[in-house]
Amino acid sequence: VYKIGTATPNDVSGLDRLIQKGEINPNSIVGVIGKTEGNGCVNDFTRGYAVSSLQAYLAPQLKDPSQVHRIVYVMSGGTEGVLSPHLTVFTRTEVEEDTIPTSPSLSIGIHHTRDFLVNEVGTRVMIEEVAKGVKSAMKQAGISSEADVHFVQIKCPLVRAADQEPQGDNRNKMDSYKSMAMSRGASALGVALALEEVTEKQLGNGDDVICQDYRLFSKVASTSAGSELRNCEIMVLGNSPESSSDFVIGHDVMQHALDTSAITRAVQQSGGTTGVVGMNDSGNQLVNILCKAEASPTGQILGCRHTMLDDSDISHTRMARAVVAAVVASIVQDPMVYVSGGAEHQGPPGGGPVAAICRRRR
Amino acid sequence: VYKIGTATPNDVSGLDRLIQKGEINPNSIVGVIGKTEGNGCVNDFTRGYAVSSLQAYLAPQLKDPSQVHRIVYVMSGGTEGVLSPHLTVFTRTEVEEDTIPTSPSLSIGIHHTRDFLVNEVGTRVMIEEVAKGVKSAMKQAGISSEADVHFVQIKCPLVRAADQEPQGDNRNKMDSYKSMAMSRGASALGVALALEEVTEKQLGNGDDVICQDYRLFSKVASTSAGSELRNCEIMVLGNSPESSSDFVIGHDVMQHALDTSAITRAVQQSGGTTGVVGMNDSGNQLVNILCKAEASPTGQILGCRHTMLDDSDISHTRMARAVVAAVVASIVQDPMVYVSGGAEHQGPPGGGPVAAICRRRR
Amino acid sequence: VYKIGTATPNDVSGLDRLIQKGEINPNSIVGVIGKTEGNGCVNDFTRGYAVSSLQAYLAPQLKDPSQVHRIVYVMSGGTEGVLSPHLTVFTRTEVEEDTIPTSPSLSIGIHHTRDFLVNEVGTRVMIEEVAKGVKSAMKQAGISSEADVHFVQIKCPLVRAADQEPQGDNRNKMDSYKSMAMSRGASALGVALALEEVTEKQLGNGDDVICQDYRLFSKVASTSAGSELRNCEIMVLGNSPESSSDFVIGHDVMQHALDTSAITRAVQQSGGTTGVVGMNDSGNQLVNILCKAEASPTGQILGCRHTMLDDSDISHTRMARAVVAAVVASIVQDPMVYVSGGAEHQGPPGGGPVAAICRRRR
Amino acid sequence: VYKIGTATPNDVSGLDRLIQKGEINPNSIVGVIGKTEGNGCVNDFTRGYAVSSLQAYLAPQLKDPSQVHRIVYVMSGGTEGVLSPHLTVFTRTEVEEDTIPTSPSLSIGIHHTRDFLVNEVGTRVMIEEVAKGVKSAMKQAGISSEADVHFVQIKCPLVRAADQEPQGDNRNKMDSYKSMAMSRGASALGVALALEEVTEKQLGNGDDVICQDYRLFSKVASTSAGSELRNCEIMVLGNSPESSSDFVIGHDVMQHALDTSAITRAVQQSGGTTGVVGMNDSGNQLVNILCKAEASPTGQILGCRHTMLDDSDISHTRMARAVVAAVVASIVQDPMVYVSGGAEHQGPPGGGPVAAICRRRR
Repeated sequence: VYKIGTATPNDVSGLDRLIQKGEINPNSIVGVIGKTEGNGCVNDFTRGYAVSSLQAYLAPQLKDPSQVHRIVYVMSGGTEGVLSPHLTVFTRTEVEEDTIPTSPSLSIGIHHTRDFLVNEVGTRVMIEEVAKGVKSAMKQAGISSEADVHFVQIKCPLVRAADQEPQGDNRNKMDSYKSMAMSRGASALGVALALEEVTEKQLGNGDDVICQDYRLFSKVASTSAGSELRNCEIMVLGNSPESSSDFVIGHDVMQHALDTSAITRAVQQSGGTTGVVGMNDSGNQLVNILCKAEASPTGQILGCRHTMLDDSDISHTRMARAVVAAVVASIVQDPMVYVSGGAEHQGPPGGGPVAAICRRRR
Repeated sequence: VYKIGTATPNDVSGLDRLIQKGEINPNSIVGVIGKTEGNGCVNDFTRGYAVSSLQAYLAPQLKDPSQVHRIVYVMSGGTEGVLSPHLTVFTRTEVEEDTIPTSPSLSIGIHHTRDFLVNEVGTRVMIEEVAKGVKSAMKQAGISSEADVHFVQIKCPLVRAADQEPQGDNRNKMDSYKSMAMSRGASALGVALALEEVTEKQLGNGDDVICQDYRLFSKVASTSAGSELRNCEIMVLGNSPESSSDFVIGHDVMQHALDTSAITRAVQQSGGTTGVVGMNDSGNQLVNILCKAEASPTGQILGCRHTMLDDSDISHTRMARAVVAAVVASIVQDPMVYVSGGAEHQGPPGGGPVAAICRRRR
Repeated sequence: VYKIGTATPNDVSGLDRLIQKGEINPNSIVGVIGKTEGNGCVNDFTRGYAVSSLQAYLAPQLKDPSQVHRIVYVMSGGTEGVLSPHLTVFTRTEVEEDTIPTSPSLSIGIHHTRDFLVNEVGTRVMIEEVAKGVKSAMKQAGISSEADVHFVQIKCPLVRAADQEPQGDNRNKMDSYKSMAMSRGASALGVALALEEVTEKQLGNGDDVICQDYRLFSKVASTSAGSELRNCEIMVLGNSPESSSDFVIGHDVMQHALDTSAITRAVQQSGGTTGVVGMNDSGNQLVNILCKAEASPTGQILGCRHTMLDDSDISHTRMARAVVAAVVASIVQDPMVYVSGGAEHQGPPGGGPVAAICRRRR
Repeated sequence: VYKIGTATPNDVSGLDRLIQKGEINPNSIVGVIGKTEGNGCVNDFTRGYAVSSLQAYLAPQLKDPSQVHRIVYVMSGGTEGVLSPHLTVFTRTEVEEDTIPTSPSLSIGIHHTRDFLVNEVGTRVMIEEVAKGVKSAMKQAGISSEADVHFVQIKCPLVRAADQEPQGDNRNKMDSYKSMAMSRGASALGVALALEEVTEKQLGNGDDVICQDYRLFSKVASTSAGSELRNCEIMVLGNSPESSSDFVIGHDVMQHALDTSAITRAVQQSGGTTGVVGMNDSGNQLVNILCKAEASPTGQILGCRHTMLDDSDISHTRMARAVVAAVVASIVQDPMVYVSGGAEHQGPPGGGPVAAICRRRR
């Protein structure tokens, strides 16, 4: 796991340096999770710009340039407040069988679903396809127990105004910003279904559940919508007994945007220590925090009114990111963290999953 | 009809000057339609500020200060682009019976509906109450024929996040920005029902129609939502054979945001001339244009893609106002016009009603 | 000191309840510091709306209604993220001489400067007038030592586009958003001068210093600009040996937006405990945190790039508030805190003063 | 001259179709002027995304792929309101000498200046370099008389927060949004100098003039700033007696944002007719309008107050584009026009140059 700051959405210089130095073998890259500095909403093209810049850079570096599309790219827009733009690059290599891992450590599985039709986005169909994909990625990661899955990051599509047929009436039209919530919500429920956090029966045909019944949620799903893709790209992160990685992942669930305890617990679970930059006393080093944020749908936080849902100037997902990123960054004293906005069915209403990745001392 | 520029939302100095000079008798004021410089969306408090400033100023000017609440206040937020903040004050006085009008001229009727419950906003119930109110206001205005109604301006409520019960799930919750469209849409259909532009049957229970079937619309409704009221305040503007006003109103329907012909026709119908500031050759003087604007829900205008519906930084109602106000202002060479955003069921999709008020030479 | 949540900018119901119950004697009110939900920038009219609503409510409650203008009103716009809109009401009453205070406690002094001309805003003249006002307020508060001043809250004017003469050229014109920074900066340096944190010589004629040389700053100034006033309204908060108040104020200086240690120290200094809602083990209860926030002018925080200064969609003062409010709220587990944006010459670049007010067990 | 609508900033499909059909020879392309759907301000990466997408597409189409950098790319962000995203592609081919032109027609010259240092942006140095470039491009275009230059389009750099050295103080720091105005202003004065619209003496060392004295301006300059380049890219458009192009360009100067007469005159000068889509009676066809827009720096338009300069939610350049694009589009009944915001020293204060390109019947 490599964390690399970026100067612009199309900045690949940091990655290039690591590849030139031989630290990263480009052929070992399985996924890139990044924060880019667009608005993180419908008309955010920095995500697509970053992905196409990465692909244009990586393709010629690979043995087989066509393999550039096998990598999972999750660009989450929105670096509000202190949130610092960066990429987290995940690599995977086969090791000799006699390298027996002493304890479970980080393992990654990926999956690309098929493209979705416009009217499939945010529906039961999407839940199903994602659930299948999550299971496939778990298998690839060598994770058999749901309890060993600590974070499932998904990039999912949205529906733009122009994607929908111009018609004399407005029936069945979806607001494009709302389509992001529906897509994130269905994807998250797909994770919940795969991990048996919800049942088929609870979901019904999906219509009364998706972005409706927030009592149903996944404790590890993190989904992010964008116009730069039509399918879902899935990355399962967990600890596997078969992995000999130096990294360990832990997670917890924030009950609300100011739930500092959950963040602290996730860090500790991974072996890290809050407030410590660099190595802690155990020789472990926190690499990144991955988490979700949302403006509490009740309009309140800790019993006090917040104004995010009634703000017509700034989208509430932007403000949610600013808040949770500031809280997380203040705890780990590092603003280069991954916080994504819109936590529909990802943790309880107003809260969200939080994961910590730590490099353990060998 | 008096048009008065304002320096801030709470500026009543212009009105005060006219009252001090004796030009306006405060007891004759029946309605004030204004443009204030907030965002025109959910968290726009300039509308309420303007209304409370007007009321605080006017109450002590009236014979009976409690009558300050009988006046209809329609503050429409959003002075995007060249749109210049102002108030249009409408007065009404009884005249001697022997003042026989030579031709139909401007007449005004007003009505305040009851307050609506949160779950009545944007529903069939609202349509019904508004329709009753429009009929009542027509009667008050001495207008018996629907054809003589040229503009029906309504201020209607919206639903804030905090207005809705905090619940474990999200069911039946309405996005606050969306609630503005629903409220405007239902109010407009109320006008359409009163003026027999739509039938009870076409409306059904409202659910499949309101902000769904834009083939149903009124050609004279102009509705504007705000958090500063819970009821609907209605102002019917038409020409009545019983009125001896110096003013005449005309109207037309813009088919799209760039429909200059409709604007020109409305101006001409009122006796005015486009591009002429002050008196035209006939001695008539255009006072104000009142019209509605919206981003075409098809995502296209004149066959070209527009980006307003996918813009997560600027609400599409704001952009629609900027566009139509610029077009209208360029035609009449006056940026102090009334343009309100969000034309659901007000004119055809993407278009909207436009009215012109002209002071005729005596 | 009373903290009261508000439902809208013009909501005075909470204050009314306390006055009706007899908890607050309206004649004892010396100042109100509030957070209102506008954008906190140039076109924020929620501040003026709140002030006029408070004045309209309070005037008839006072023995002498004209005294309503003797109260200092500091409305700071911008409740980004979790920041919850509220008022903090400060009262002051004379006590019998034989009530001998056991330890220094909260004391308040206020001052209203003269109105400033447009071309005085943000200049050396403003520094001078503010410095005089601060000294006057200190005297009123019974605070003789600069070290006993823990927070100086100032509301200062801004310059709107329309305030400046239309001219053929642009010379000497100030951008209205920039005028806020200049006004805040000069006001803060006025505090610094009064408290001998800077010298007359260091300031020179002000031109090379104000919003230029951020090495000069006050450790207790908190200044907030708005269009709702033309003068500066000053509130000095400190601990005085002559005060027998139940409240104590402490303060510290945040070195950057994520400086959690400074916040913790300020809370502790006041007798409070972080993370404790209600009374702590000593019987003390934290009432409110007052602090300043800004996007680091270096473009970096903790060595990482932030994007706030290059964001043309959201003003950087808004984001700074969202960040620091989230950090403070997470530490005290209360989102109803006072955080104001734009900390020019208020604390070191990127940081800002933070004060805590605590009600001590008697 | 080819006008091509785009579906996203990276959409090259329309250009590809014309190249595949053989209508455009990629080797003949000298410049591309486009409107992309970012905010058109500092953090607009859609411009860079569009340029890199065009380059990635075009390079392999060219005989010599390295020639892809000889093309001038002017991407102007901001498609507010009805403004429809599109590209205008300019090609140039050598013709036989015996093709004697009957009347002057469109001719294009281009020039790339050297990269500018951060502290050169918006200064006298920039004016000088641009002036040299304009003269060079005129020569290339075969235009010897200044009167034959009808539009000079320039893309110029801006200064981001991160481009400037982090320092203990703020001296000599430029606000990044302001840097756009300075860069546009200096570039425009460079055009004015080259075309003898201003003298060396009038400019002095630039400091008291650039974005200060708006009495100095060019009647044909159109400059647009962006972070995607460090140099200025210049495109001179005029009519040359040596050109045998089917196209003709005309221009005029808008005195204010609602100056419809100037737009009409520019269209007529080019041989086109307003309000006519497709061929007019003369067989001529209007292709595109190129113009500049700005919020009048006086804060007034046609004697009425506008609020654009005090709007802290929406940058004034965005609103200016929305306004002028709506006016232009309403006149030519086509929303696919090029309108760029920020007209410092480009036309009189509040106004801007407007050019029309028309394909003449052979």
